[in-house]
Amino acid sequence: MTTDTFPKGATATATVDGATVRLNGFCKGSGMIAPDMATMLAYLFTDASLPASVMQPLLATAAEISFNSMTIDGDTSTSDTLLLCATQQVRHAAITSAADPRLSDFRRALAEICGGLAKQLARDGEGAEKFVTIEVSGAENYRAARRIGLTIGNSPLVKTAIAAGDANWGRIVMAVGRAGEKADRDRLSIAVGGIQIASEGAPVPGYNETPVAEHMQGREIHIAVDLGIGPGRATVWTCDLTHGYVDINGSYRS
Amino acid sequence: MTTDTFPKGATATATVDGATVRLNGFCKGSGMIAPDMATMLAYLFTDASLPASVMQPLLATAAEISFNSMTIDGDTSTSDTLLLCATQQVRHAAITSAADPRLSDFRRALAEICGGLAKQLARDGEGAEKFVTIEVSGAENYRAARRIGLTIGNSPLVKTAIAAGDANWGRIVMAVGRAGEKADRDRLSIAVGGIQIASEGAPVPGYNETPVAEHMQGREIHIAVDLGIGPGRATVWTCDLTHGYVDINGSYRS
Repeated sequence: MTTDTFPKGATATATVDGATVRLNGFCKGSGMIAPDMATMLAYLFTDASLPASVMQPLLATAAEISFNSMTIDGDTSTSDTLLLCATQQVRHAAITSAADPRLSDFRRALAEICGGLAKQLARDGEGAEKFVTIEVSGAENYRAARRIGLTIGNSPLVKTAIAAGDANWGRIVMAVGRAGEKADRDRLSIAVGGIQIASEGAPVPGYNETPVAEHMQGREIHIAVDLGIGPGRATVWTCDLTHGYVDINGSYRS
Repeated sequence: MTTDTFPKGATATATVDGATVRLNGFCKGSGMIAPDMATMLAYLFTDASLPASVMQPLLATAAEISFNSMTIDGDTSTSDTLLLCATQQVRHAAITSAADPRLSDFRRALAEICGGLAKQLARDGEGAEKFVTIEVSGAENYRAARRIGLTIGNSPLVKTAIAAGDANWGRIVMAVGRAGEKADRDRLSIAVGGIQIASEGAPVPGYNETPVAEHMQGREIHIAVDLGIGPGRATVWTCDLTHGYVDINGSYRS
């Protein structure tokens, strides 16, 4: 059984040692579903001639900034799968290290298709009506930034506010605090839909909620949070929490 | 503004050094609401003659096993408040240490009213239709047990299954794994409504879902999880995740 509503695929090309290689991937998943069902499965293929020992670290890195930066409901699955297979149809010099500089374009392409698939998963989250991008900057480091982004993305209060088109930035502040990472209320800046709401801990003078509320009525929501304390940046993707999610996960067996 | 649907109070008596003292408490809260609203507030009063230095550690301990063992949606608040005031109307010997053995009954009574109030909060969770008790045993220690209980209690998949009356124990297993505490699938036992479903990692022979499904249709849900690896025990209270929660948190300003 699947609750996916559309097929998810991504493709990219990269140059490895002068040869053009292709990467294709597809995946399924729309809830971080429990072990009695199929769940997030992603299969990637490339015609590059790369051994598993090279691809494994590349894939782990790409997964961090794509599949592991996406959340639908915070519930992880026991059978999530991400595979990368090389058909070795394109001939190029043998590469034996993931750190080989000739892999830089391949690394970029791999991140591109993983990110593309992860975004499709979030967009098709169970019951989702809105796709949400959360950009966190100014955090202590990358892991802190991602954790703050995922905490915002998993907050039922943020997700229900988004479902309702409510420009409730107080809930974003709450989620930043709840993440447990280093933060300073007096340095926190928040923008929604590109419109600055709070800067360094205070509402922007003359803040007008109307354009933010208009953005929140749309189907593509953008939240930017700047902690103002460090160099850490991360982008996280999620969806809203709707009646559809409650329905799908209450009634899938009936 | 409040989304509480009923007033919440609790009372208890205790003997301190031969004198009978009373404890009364009341609280409000039904979502771990964002900073733009009032939220979980609890005020306790006792006529015991105890100084703040004695009551503070007693209250911290009681809070751990009551308010801090309860979750509605996992979203913490910036203004949660728990106060204990002593009116000193009852005369008894001066007690200057929270470890004084003459406080053992007071400690019991304090835990009783804190637990009673915490359970009322969970029962009145925003949109809640069911009150859920999660008893975790056999965990590595108390903190691990409580964290596992809270992870189960915060799982949107577990909470939507409960809302729908679905005896989906796979989701409980998922949440145990997601908690990140020490666990061994082959030692895990689960009971719902007092009916054993899985024992030491395997479904109980001849498991019949019907009585469990009947329990899940009720309004008082009991989940027991035994990790089978240590002495840690904890009880956590929560509620289900319903359409009502999505409504309340999407429309509170309209």
